[in-house]
Amino acid sequence: MAEPSTISPAPLLKDELDIVIPTIRNLDFLEMWRPFFQPYHLIIVQDGDPSKTIKVPEGFDYELYNRNDINRILGPKSSCISFKDSACRCFGYMVSKKKYIYTIDDDCFVAKDPSGKDINALEQHIKNLLCPSTPFFFNTLYDPYRAGADFVRGYPFSLREGVPTAVSHGLWLNIPDYDAPTQLVKPLERNTRYVDAIMTIPKGTLFPMCGMNLAFNRELIGPAMYFGLMGDGQPIGRYDDMWAGWCTKVICDHLGLGVKTGLPYIWHSKASNPFVNLKKEYKGIYWQEELIPFFQSVTLPKDCTSVQKCYIEISKQVKAKLGKVDDYFNKLADAMVTWIEAWDELNPSGAKSAELSNGASK
Amino acid sequence: MAEPSTISPAPLLKDELDIVIPTIRNLDFLEMWRPFFQPYHLIIVQDGDPSKTIKVPEGFDYELYNRNDINRILGPKSSCISFKDSACRCFGYMVSKKKYIYTIDDDCFVAKDPSGKDINALEQHIKNLLCPSTPFFFNTLYDPYRAGADFVRGYPFSLREGVPTAVSHGLWLNIPDYDAPTQLVKPLERNTRYVDAIMTIPKGTLFPMCGMNLAFNRELIGPAMYFGLMGDGQPIGRYDDMWAGWCTKVICDHLGLGVKTGLPYIWHSKASNPFVNLKKEYKGIYWQEELIPFFQSVTLPKDCTSVQKCYIEISKQVKAKLGKVDDYFNKLADAMVTWIEAWDELNPSGAKSAELSNGASK
Repeated sequence: MAEPSTISPAPLLKDELDIVIPTIRNLDFLEMWRPFFQPYHLIIVQDGDPSKTIKVPEGFDYELYNRNDINRILGPKSSCISFKDSACRCFGYMVSKKKYIYTIDDDCFVAKDPSGKDINALEQHIKNLLCPSTPFFFNTLYDPYRAGADFVRGYPFSLREGVPTAVSHGLWLNIPDYDAPTQLVKPLERNTRYVDAIMTIPKGTLFPMCGMNLAFNRELIGPAMYFGLMGDGQPIGRYDDMWAGWCTKVICDHLGLGVKTGLPYIWHSKASNPFVNLKKEYKGIYWQEELIPFFQSVTLPKDCTSVQKCYIEISKQVKAKLGKVDDYFNKLADAMVTWIEAWDELNPSGAKSAELSNGASK
Repeated sequence: MAEPSTISPAPLLKDELDIVIPTIRNLDFLEMWRPFFQPYHLIIVQDGDPSKTIKVPEGFDYELYNRNDINRILGPKSSCISFKDSACRCFGYMVSKKKYIYTIDDDCFVAKDPSGKDINALEQHIKNLLCPSTPFFFNTLYDPYRAGADFVRGYPFSLREGVPTAVSHGLWLNIPDYDAPTQLVKPLERNTRYVDAIMTIPKGTLFPMCGMNLAFNRELIGPAMYFGLMGDGQPIGRYDDMWAGWCTKVICDHLGLGVKTGLPYIWHSKASNPFVNLKKEYKGIYWQEELIPFFQSVTLPKDCTSVQKCYIEISKQVKAKLGKVDDYFNKLADAMVTWIEAWDELNPSGAKSAELSNGASK
């Protein structure tokens, strides 16, 4: 018999997942992730000055796109990809050919669980994505599919099969993902609470999706993961992932797909500058008061049976209902359409398969 | 200066909270709870043979009601209180004169947190009830009002005040609250996962409310906490707390009140007999498949501005829509009306104050 302890198990989904990293600097942070990320392919989206060389540690398998590449590949449609903002990461989702995406910021390090063990964040995301979600009824013992847990008394049996999971939203120890006002008010707050839970965000409930530590099934929901128009030349920043999250959640609810949040944690090393953040955020902070009621009331017609169709429908409603909030939303609605056109151009078979495999929910 | 370490802080809400315990046996389990429960008043609802004497450990302040007392106090209306089923506990909610209720089963003991410290479950419930809930938007770092946590980036500022918390639903280590089929399939499963979280169950989402370790604000939601017709002479058992939970959640959503779940844990010592449970549950297991869609679609009119009005409206809808599922629901609907009549009789001022203090939500 072979010695089991000497055989490393094959990394999960090795050939079916890309890791997307937006960056403006050398990727030294990958050294810490080497044991977990090295088997996977990386898609690096270089933001800012394209003439700068980004160093990637030896031994990683990657492709790298800078702004020149994006302009060349997308032509005029490159206008939908943000510049000088980590929102540019969504270009990586578009050029990937894999079924799953994990995206992580370059200031995120390996966290430790309460026993002191390094957390393999990617492995936990994959587990989350490969097991179902339960958006139609709340399970008080959290994810019923985890070892040692199940559905509690009173959980309808007809709902225990669950639905496919489209999104796995991971959390952050150390620096929490606060907005600028909260950063300013609580400069010393650190997240030290390790909550050992994964849960499905219920149908009809919106949440603030953070792009720092996020995985998704690209085949199921990829075209909804557009991070909007942020950064250079735009009146707003730091709402890229939020925008993607609201669109994604509404579409998941419509198509009967699940969104999970909770484990895994990463270690978020450094708070961004709250004064700079405030400048980026302040329009978002008041626009958001209109965006949330908008997304809470979006309804998608039955014939929206693919993510693309849903997304185009949302873009129309954005123009019709948010255009009056600020002209920015007219530009954004147009960019949403351009994004889908570019997605379908780069993923000619994806549009079809998405439509065939997802039935619209009631 | 006085020595701070020698002064015990006064127990929270000492004169504003009753502990309700349904039982058929001597209450030896209270010994373990003495440090936490002794300052509070107990309401013991004795189920089964009223001639039996229930022993309560020395030093506890309590009142005890057996079936003869219930019949004497409620007269013909006592028909709404279940017999030979722990659903009888809701009689204790009705006769209490306090603002808050904590109810616990007599097979629940003090659990330990991961550091090995005894968990003061009651104290945590009180904290949960005294701080707001956030039912309109999901906060990914769980309860934003806990020390070390806050609202994350992207959480609308207009929603950060929260709403009053009506219910605090606590969890169970050791024996999880499973239905009979799951008990039969997983006889050895134990809940060993301590999840250090409290969260608001979002508006529009139903959950399985367990009565084993439950606290609520009686002034805000008391009349909705009717545990139905179970046990002796009824075709169903073990759905008492579920029924109360579904009615309560629908009414909380309508009135703009919050329901929290998570901490505190108690130690649930002993699984009940799965064969007996199956007999009690089997009708509930299939009726439930119609009950959940029913409760998901209940809408309450704007003029339902008190818990009582909401509850009477639900009873009408139960009769109209569930009467055809089984005649049991006609009886239950009538009992719901009787329960409200009895509640208002015993709480003549409560009906008024509930209406004045709660505005109906949109």
